[in-house]
Amino acid sequence: MSRPLILVTNDDGVRAKGIKALIEMVKPLGDVVVMAPFHGNSGMSHAITVKVPLRYKKVREEEGVVVYGCTGTPVDCVKLAIGEVLYKKPDILVSGINHGSNTSVSVIYSGTMGAVIEGCIYGVKSIGFSLLDYNSDADFSQIIDYGRVIAKNTLENNLPENTCLNVNFPVLKKEDIQGVKICRQAKGIWREEFDKRQDPRSGEYFWLTGYYENCENGSTDTDEWALANNYISIVPIEIDFTAHDKIEYFKSWNYDI
Amino acid sequence: MSRPLILVTNDDGVRAKGIKALIEMVKPLGDVVVMAPFHGNSGMSHAITVKVPLRYKKVREEEGVVVYGCTGTPVDCVKLAIGEVLYKKPDILVSGINHGSNTSVSVIYSGTMGAVIEGCIYGVKSIGFSLLDYNSDADFSQIIDYGRVIAKNTLENNLPENTCLNVNFPVLKKEDIQGVKICRQAKGIWREEFDKRQDPRSGEYFWLTGYYENCENGSTDTDEWALANNYISIVPIEIDFTAHDKIEYFKSWNYDI
Repeated sequence: MSRPLILVTNDDGVRAKGIKALIEMVKPLGDVVVMAPFHGNSGMSHAITVKVPLRYKKVREEEGVVVYGCTGTPVDCVKLAIGEVLYKKPDILVSGINHGSNTSVSVIYSGTMGAVIEGCIYGVKSIGFSLLDYNSDADFSQIIDYGRVIAKNTLENNLPENTCLNVNFPVLKKEDIQGVKICRQAKGIWREEFDKRQDPRSGEYFWLTGYYENCENGSTDTDEWALANNYISIVPIEIDFTAHDKIEYFKSWNYDI
Repeated sequence: MSRPLILVTNDDGVRAKGIKALIEMVKPLGDVVVMAPFHGNSGMSHAITVKVPLRYKKVREEEGVVVYGCTGTPVDCVKLAIGEVLYKKPDILVSGINHGSNTSVSVIYSGTMGAVIEGCIYGVKSIGFSLLDYNSDADFSQIIDYGRVIAKNTLENNLPENTCLNVNFPVLKKEDIQGVKICRQAKGIWREEFDKRQDPRSGEYFWLTGYYENCENGSTDTDEWALANNYISIVPIEIDFTAHDKIEYFKSWNYDI
């Protein structure tokens, strides 16, 4: 049997420490092809590049690992890898390890998870990994073993149709991690605070800042709860966004013009 | 009672014909504030701008309508309007009218729907409108009355928590539209075809192209079916992406390291 083909990407860029840790994590599981943005793409969500063309080039190669950089977004990277570069559909896609949290509502802003959802649309088993440490020099060594077990499970088991995984790791020593919790996405919101400034010509400009606010009242089945209690959170993500249980309600409205 | 406050945005840019039609649609329902990108933002999904600051300025003003242009993405526009510009939370957010389809899986690439989902996260009743005509000079006049009825329903009725609406219009004369269908998002995929070219210095570059492929086998409850059968499609969209019914399955895996 041939070795599994593993597509690796991220949103922090091909030189980020997190993607190096991710390559180390999955290398024992198969042949690795990396296609990741040259530059940071945080907050790019599921954006695709339509106004300028894409380019990619090989950055380095070693035994079992080929690394490409791409001018596009994380979703562009997935499309380009699957549509143009890989010789077959990958057996698994892993994205990250993101420098910082992708819990709760952040899943929708996240370039890391944009790539994962794109892989899922293509029918590839896809996982996003994030560590709750925004530091560019974050220590990923404590979570490699856990991440590998999750990737191995995903390779060996069935992944339900239209479902991918969002994995977040707490910043802890391996021995202090309490294990894995399968969770739902916590209800939360980013509270925006715009930092208003004046440029040298007296023009106003705004920096987007803000803080995450958890809107849950003590529920113990969310990703936020799991991480606050020293667990790794795994949220299965559904790529059909239809609110199926609301369809009947909207049928009751009157649409006559 | 004060008139409803209506926030209008889009992804085709503040000068697009579609947003002018949308303003005309909702103007009779309340006071309108427009905050839309200066330039086209198709395919920007839920992207936010984190590396450069944002600017906005008033573009025009008339009785009951103030129009601002913004340098950011559709999601930035919503954040900036709600966080900085509006005197109160809007009673409704409408986005579009998009030049082209936002059915099926396209909801996740769409800047129009990115803005809608952002409004929904803020707890604002939010609707995205799209016409299945990519032409910049598309005729929006036939759908104004239907759109207004949907917006009016949304203002007057309860919208379930964490739910927003994705409305797509067929390209038909008003009298040929068969009415409204409440649908689920069809299963489909964009099949990528990269247009590979050479620049004058012999460097390779790729244009992202492709076509939508419907993966449904004759189901009559999808948005794609509704539109192909001359109906307006409305898909209620859920902003909790958790695959709730898969949680038990993933608990059965072995996560021991």
